[in-house]
Amino acid sequence: MLIKIGGGKKNNLEYICNDIKTLIDQGEKVVLVHGASVTRDELAEKLGVPTETIISPSGISSVFTDTDAIDVFLMAYPGIVNKKIVAKLQSYRVNAVGLSGIDGQLWRGKRKTAVYSKEGEKTKLITNNMSGKVTDININLILLLLDNKYVPVVCPPALSEENEIINTDNDWAAAVMAGALHIEKMIVLFEAPGLLKKFGDESSVIKKVDKTKLDECFTYTQGRMKKKLLGAKEVFRLGLKKLYWSDGRIKNPIFKALKGEGTVIS
Amino acid sequence: MLIKIGGGKKNNLEYICNDIKTLIDQGEKVVLVHGASVTRDELAEKLGVPTETIISPSGISSVFTDTDAIDVFLMAYPGIVNKKIVAKLQSYRVNAVGLSGIDGQLWRGKRKTAVYSKEGEKTKLITNNMSGKVTDININLILLLLDNKYVPVVCPPALSEENEIINTDNDWAAAVMAGALHIEKMIVLFEAPGLLKKFGDESSVIKKVDKTKLDECFTYTQGRMKKKLLGAKEVFRLGLKKLYWSDGRIKNPIFKALKGEGTVIS
Repeated sequence: MLIKIGGGKKNNLEYICNDIKTLIDQGEKVVLVHGASVTRDELAEKLGVPTETIISPSGISSVFTDTDAIDVFLMAYPGIVNKKIVAKLQSYRVNAVGLSGIDGQLWRGKRKTAVYSKEGEKTKLITNNMSGKVTDININLILLLLDNKYVPVVCPPALSEENEIINTDNDWAAAVMAGALHIEKMIVLFEAPGLLKKFGDESSVIKKVDKTKLDECFTYTQGRMKKKLLGAKEVFRLGLKKLYWSDGRIKNPIFKALKGEGTVIS
Repeated sequence: MLIKIGGGKKNNLEYICNDIKTLIDQGEKVVLVHGASVTRDELAEKLGVPTETIISPSGISSVFTDTDAIDVFLMAYPGIVNKKIVAKLQSYRVNAVGLSGIDGQLWRGKRKTAVYSKEGEKTKLITNNMSGKVTDININLILLLLDNKYVPVVCPPALSEENEIINTDNDWAAAVMAGALHIEKMIVLFEAPGLLKKFGDESSVIKKVDKTKLDECFTYTQGRMKKKLLGAKEVFRLGLKKLYWSDGRIKNPIFKALKGEGTVIS
């Protein structure tokens, strides 16, 4: 089972760790992937290098990551957030091991040396963006840890073909890793009760989505959700059976997701 | 072989990685431990929470670490510095995996809930210091990685008995880990050509030290070096054969250390 926790601070780590402990006790093998975007943005602000966003010509937003932003990225993702999740899991007697995509070449990708950014009416070419999509996974490292009763806790950055540290879309990377590991169930926890029909309206949760009709969802989603949809399309293409999008803020978030309290895509 | 790299920025990572690559090609098994004190201090300054030092009644200095300081610690050690070393090693085709002491319960210690600090004439009791000495090592995790051709790159923090994230003396932790792993050769690289007879005088390198006479060295060492001496005493007590203290700034730092160009303690 692969569980992805969003980078929002309202996700309840105690509740999530408690469910993971139960899963482990039931003999489940669990791989965790997490974000840290809010921590990253707060730190960037404090350090005077605020996070900048790029909007692609097709309307997908992503973070502009120069070498300064990579440092802030490292502070937040494998630094603060990864280690706090690992320590919290340890306090629940789950023997977690934190890894970034660069450790053991876990997440390999190709850096996009040129990306286009829409700025009003203009489109700008950006060449110093340290970012790229994950294409290859070192599943041996994950399997080695799982076989020895460790719970891998994974986060970006990834490693480029030229061994640069690159920012990478976490939803896409989690999808590629789930595919490589032949994961059947994937749970994505975030600060909403599921996929919403109306942006911001938490009563508009869509309970079931047909995996062949994910394209239709793009019309009513915004920002980060569009990336989650792209990740979802990819992970089904790679063989996933069931994808759960559910609330990371509530008690028993994982078991409630599995019961279908959020959005089930299959 | 265990190699420890100090937290100073003048240590030359390219030279160090180049030697590690050669060692790996020669079939050597290598475990790396690193510091990040300069990066930590710079970040603490930028974030407005400068590093504070405690002087123990016996004159040993250490860093005061409250929960804010733990965050800065995580940013610098497992965040920026660990991942940059891992990526650099990857660029030398060394398949490094970064770990902190909390991952897989690698470094366990007991938090010192009360420490004394000399402040001028007075001695103050401090109870909110998130710090402690490493006592137990999960050598299985290190051996698992080594047996599968990974190079572990390890740094603090450690995990307390109550699963808190704690700062820990890196020289002591490296010593305990070297002992647990039955390491025979340990190399410590820093920003000096070896153990100096006169503080600051790089021409005063002591070439050989008898491991039974380490206590005598305390008379002419200052600050961090006293901690290195305590670590050295411990690692010999635990069975080490040879300890090399040498220059991390020069070309072929590891091979020069092994040739005795720095200080050899045995």
